[in-house]
Amino acid sequence: MKSYGLTPFLGPDEHEIRAVHSAWIVAVNAGDLERLLTLATDDAVFINPGQAPFGRDGFSLGFSAAHKQARIDCTSELEEVVVAGEVAYTRSRDALSVTRRGGGEATKLAGYRITVYRKQPDGRWLLARDAHTLSPAEK
Amino acid sequence: MKSYGLTPFLGPDEHEIRAVHSAWIVAVNAGDLERLLTLATDDAVFINPGQAPFGRDGFSLGFSAAHKQARIDCTSELEEVVVAGEVAYTRSRDALSVTRRGGGEATKLAGYRITVYRKQPDGRWLLARDAHTLSPAEK
Repeated sequence: MKSYGLTPFLGPDEHEIRAVHSAWIVAVNAGDLERLLTLATDDAVFINPGQAPFGRDGFSLGFSAAHKQARIDCTSELEEVVVAGEVAYTRSRDALSVTRRGGGEATKLAGYRITVYRKQPDGRWLLARDAHTLSPAEK
Repeated sequence: MKSYGLTPFLGPDEHEIRAVHSAWIVAVNAGDLERLLTLATDDAVFINPGQAPFGRDGFSLGFSAAHKQARIDCTSELEEVVVAGEVAYTRSRDALSVTRRGGGEATKLAGYRITVYRKQPDGRWLLARDAHTLSPAEK
């Protein structure tokens, strides 16, 4: 069995999925849409509260608009990673802080997320489905 | 290949998952908690907007309380069923109508859902993880 630094008991797939999950959050905070699109499948579907599900195009539009208007600081704590062959699902606890450019108080959102990852023929794991319940957090 | 009436091209696993998905909704509308618990894994996790995730116990408490207070009419339209070995995920479009016992206007909620099903050693598919975005529908 290969060793992965501080997490020697993770299988290589789980290790990779955790890395993609982290890379996703880093790219969200960096406003790096191009990077995010390399981490999602062509047929990715995003389910957000109060909206109809959307794919890569809808994601790109929404993400660009949000980053134009606000600075976004997102954290995501993985609570579960389950790998089953070419499919994996994760559960995470997420928090989002949105600060309008030009100042003002940050809006804080909190919620949970289920994400489905799919293993590609080249071995990469990509985000395929995502549903979250992020909503304005109680103060 | 076995035939399944009007859906001859579904594999047996997809057929079974669709049946469990339907049975779940029927049991929700019937207020049949006992039946619902037979359709979920022991470690099932439910992610609902505005709440911390809960398991079977939390589900049972919430479901019983809701049915005591209101008549619930739920519909769920499957938009996708993907089977990968012992794990499957579905996406559905859900609507919920909640009418308080004793009368009053129905509250309508709408949203989308990702559900993870797990195949059991005896071949049954059970609901294992569920996240939805049901929220009050615009009028």
